[in-house]
Amino acid sequence: MIAAPQTNAFNPPRRILMGPGPSDIYPEVLAAQSRPTVGHLDPLFIGMMDELKALIQYAFQTKNQMTIAVSAPGSAGMETCFVNLVEPGEKVIVCRNGVFGERMRQNVERIGATAVVVDTPWGEPVNVEDVKQALEANPDAKFLAFVHAETSTGALSDAKTLCALAKQHGCLSIVDSVTSLGGVELLVDEWGIDAIYSGSQKCLSCVPGLSPVSFSEAAVEKLKARKTAVQSWFLDQSLVMGYWSGNGKRSYHHTAPVNALYALHESLRKLADEGLENAWQRHQQMHQLLKAGLEKLGIKFVVDEASRLPQLNAVYIPEGVDDAAVRSRLLNDYNLEIGAGLGDLAGKAWRIGLMGYGARRENVALCLRALEEVLS
Amino acid sequence: MIAAPQTNAFNPPRRILMGPGPSDIYPEVLAAQSRPTVGHLDPLFIGMMDELKALIQYAFQTKNQMTIAVSAPGSAGMETCFVNLVEPGEKVIVCRNGVFGERMRQNVERIGATAVVVDTPWGEPVNVEDVKQALEANPDAKFLAFVHAETSTGALSDAKTLCALAKQHGCLSIVDSVTSLGGVELLVDEWGIDAIYSGSQKCLSCVPGLSPVSFSEAAVEKLKARKTAVQSWFLDQSLVMGYWSGNGKRSYHHTAPVNALYALHESLRKLADEGLENAWQRHQQMHQLLKAGLEKLGIKFVVDEASRLPQLNAVYIPEGVDDAAVRSRLLNDYNLEIGAGLGDLAGKAWRIGLMGYGARRENVALCLRALEEVLS
Repeated sequence: MIAAPQTNAFNPPRRILMGPGPSDIYPEVLAAQSRPTVGHLDPLFIGMMDELKALIQYAFQTKNQMTIAVSAPGSAGMETCFVNLVEPGEKVIVCRNGVFGERMRQNVERIGATAVVVDTPWGEPVNVEDVKQALEANPDAKFLAFVHAETSTGALSDAKTLCALAKQHGCLSIVDSVTSLGGVELLVDEWGIDAIYSGSQKCLSCVPGLSPVSFSEAAVEKLKARKTAVQSWFLDQSLVMGYWSGNGKRSYHHTAPVNALYALHESLRKLADEGLENAWQRHQQMHQLLKAGLEKLGIKFVVDEASRLPQLNAVYIPEGVDDAAVRSRLLNDYNLEIGAGLGDLAGKAWRIGLMGYGARRENVALCLRALEEVLS
Repeated sequence: MIAAPQTNAFNPPRRILMGPGPSDIYPEVLAAQSRPTVGHLDPLFIGMMDELKALIQYAFQTKNQMTIAVSAPGSAGMETCFVNLVEPGEKVIVCRNGVFGERMRQNVERIGATAVVVDTPWGEPVNVEDVKQALEANPDAKFLAFVHAETSTGALSDAKTLCALAKQHGCLSIVDSVTSLGGVELLVDEWGIDAIYSGSQKCLSCVPGLSPVSFSEAAVEKLKARKTAVQSWFLDQSLVMGYWSGNGKRSYHHTAPVNALYALHESLRKLADEGLENAWQRHQQMHQLLKAGLEKLGIKFVVDEASRLPQLNAVYIPEGVDDAAVRSRLLNDYNLEIGAGLGDLAGKAWRIGLMGYGARRENVALCLRALEEVLS
C-alpha cells in the first residue's frame, strides 16, 4: 500500500479579494453553503431550485424558461452555449478584444465550426462598425459571439447594439457576461440576447464553481432543430433540462452540487434584496472613489473612460515598479489580493476588482492606502 | 425591469443520507468548506492543492502525476476520460451492466468513436468471459471501459482481472470508480488502471460537485499523441495540467472551485486518518449489520452475495408495498433518505447507501428500525 501523506487542516487567512475574481464572498453565502447537505431529488431542495431559477431570471432580467446554473465554472458555461447551439460546419462571428474572445474562438473550432474573428485592440470595446461589416460580408453566419465585459482588459462592450445588429442579420447572439452580471446594466430580454453565461465568483460574490446560463426561445428552437447530437453529454441542455424543468417532476441527470447551489441561492437573494439598479450604482460609485485615488497616485487606466468597467479596473503598472513584488507585499502584509495582468497585459497591468460584496468603501480605502504605502 | 422574486433563506433540515449519494457529509468537511475564500493563484491555496493531489493519489493508490480533481461532478469526470483519450473513429469496448455503462457508450458515440457493447444483465458483475471474447473478436479495439461499482444495481465487477485482460490485448482501461473509491478495495497502480474517475459525494463523504481523476503514463502518452484537438476546451487535460502541474508555477485555466476543494481536501484527510484498509473494512462491517437486519424483515438483495457492494445495497421492494409512500414516510417522519431504483430497477428496488461517513452503526440502526415501523 502507498502510505498516506502527512497533511494539516487548511486554515486560510481572511484575504480581501480585489482581483479579477473570486471576489469577496458574502459571509451569509459562506454560511448558507455549509448548511446540511440534502439529496438532489429531495422535495425541499427542489423547492429551493425553483426559487433559484427565478432568482437567476431576475439577475439576467429574462423570462427565458431555459435558465439554469451549470454545475461547473464559467468556462463550462461558455462551452454549454457553444456546444448546444453551434453545429459542425456552421459559421460564427467571434469578436476578440481580450483573452475570453480568443477562448470563444477555440470553442467554435473544437466543434468543427468556422470562426470569423473580428479583432479589436486589447483595452477597447468591440468595434461595432467592424462587426457590422463582418455580418454583411458573411450572410451565411448563424451566430455573433462576444464578451460583454472583458475580464482581461476591463473594457465594456455595447451589448445592446451588438445584439440588435445580430438580429438584423439573422444571427443568434452568444454573450459572455461572466464579469458583467450584477455589476453593470444587463437586460437579456430587452436587448434580445439569445444565449448568455456568467460565473458565480464575480459580481454575485458567491463561491467559484457555478455558471448561470440562459437561452432565449429562438436559441431553444435552434437546439431542438439540431441534426447532430451535442458533443458533450455532461453539458447537453436537452438532458439537463429534465432536472431543471421545474414542472415538479425532476429526472436525474447528474448529482447537483447541492451546497454550492445553496450558496448561489443566497448570493442572488442578496442581489435581489439590494436591487439590481442599486447594485449597478454602487459599483459605479466605488469605481469613482477608486479612480480618484489611483489618479492621485499617478496610476493610469488601460481603458478609456467611456467604456471602462467599474468592477474591473485594469491599470498600468507604474514604470520601474516590480509587479510581482508589489502584489506579494499587498498579499503578505495587508492580506489584500489584486490581480496580475493576463495575456497581452501580463507584466504590464494590474487588475483591481470591485465586484459584488467587494465593492465597498472600506475595500477602496484599504486598497488605496496599501498601494500608496507599498509604492512609496 | 422584471421584479425580484420573493424568497426565503434556505434552511434545510438535517437529513440522514442513505441513498446512492450524496452521502452523509462529515461535519468537518462542511466546516472546512465555509472557511474564507482565497484566490485560486494564492500561494497558500497552491500549497493546499499540492497536498490535495497527494491525498487523491493516496485514495487511488497511484503515483500517477496526472492526478487531479475535475471542477465538476462525476459525469464530467467520465467525459474527461473519454474525450481526452478516445479519438474519432477509434474503437472502445464498453461493458454495460447498468445505467453508467450505458452512459459510457453515449460518451463514446458523441466523440464519433465506435462502441462495442458487452452486455451483462443488470445486477450482475461484468462477465469476464464475454469481455475476453469481445477483446479477441476486436483486435483493433484501443480501450476497455467498465464501471467498477454500478451505482444503479449495487454490483461490484472484477476490476483487477478486467484491467489485466485489457493490457493483454493492448487496450487502455477506463474505469468508473464513482461509487467504489473509499468503499471497497481499489488499487490503481497495482491493477494497471489507465484512466479512472470518481465523485466527491459517495464514499468520500464530501459535498457533491468534484470528480477525482487519474491517468497512467500510458494514458498520458495517448493524450500527447492525439492527432485531433480534444473536443472540450473545459475538460482538455493538456490545458488543465498547466494549473495542476504542481511545479510551483501554476497557469490560469479556469477559476478553481476554491471552497469545494477545501472540502475535498478535508474529506480525503479524514480517509487518510482512518486508513484506506480500515475504511474498506468498516463498509463491509456495516453492510453485514444492515444485511442481517434486512433479511429479518424478509427483504431480498438484487445482487448475489459474491459481488455485492457493501456501500450500495440494492434490495427488492417487498410485494404490495408502495415504493414512493415508504420513501416519503422515511424522509418526512425520520429525516431519512434512501434511494429509489434507477433505470430498469425503477419502482422495483430501493438503494440503501452506506457510504463514507454514512457507514455508521447509528445509521444502520435507524434505517432498520424506521423500515420496520413503516413497513409494519
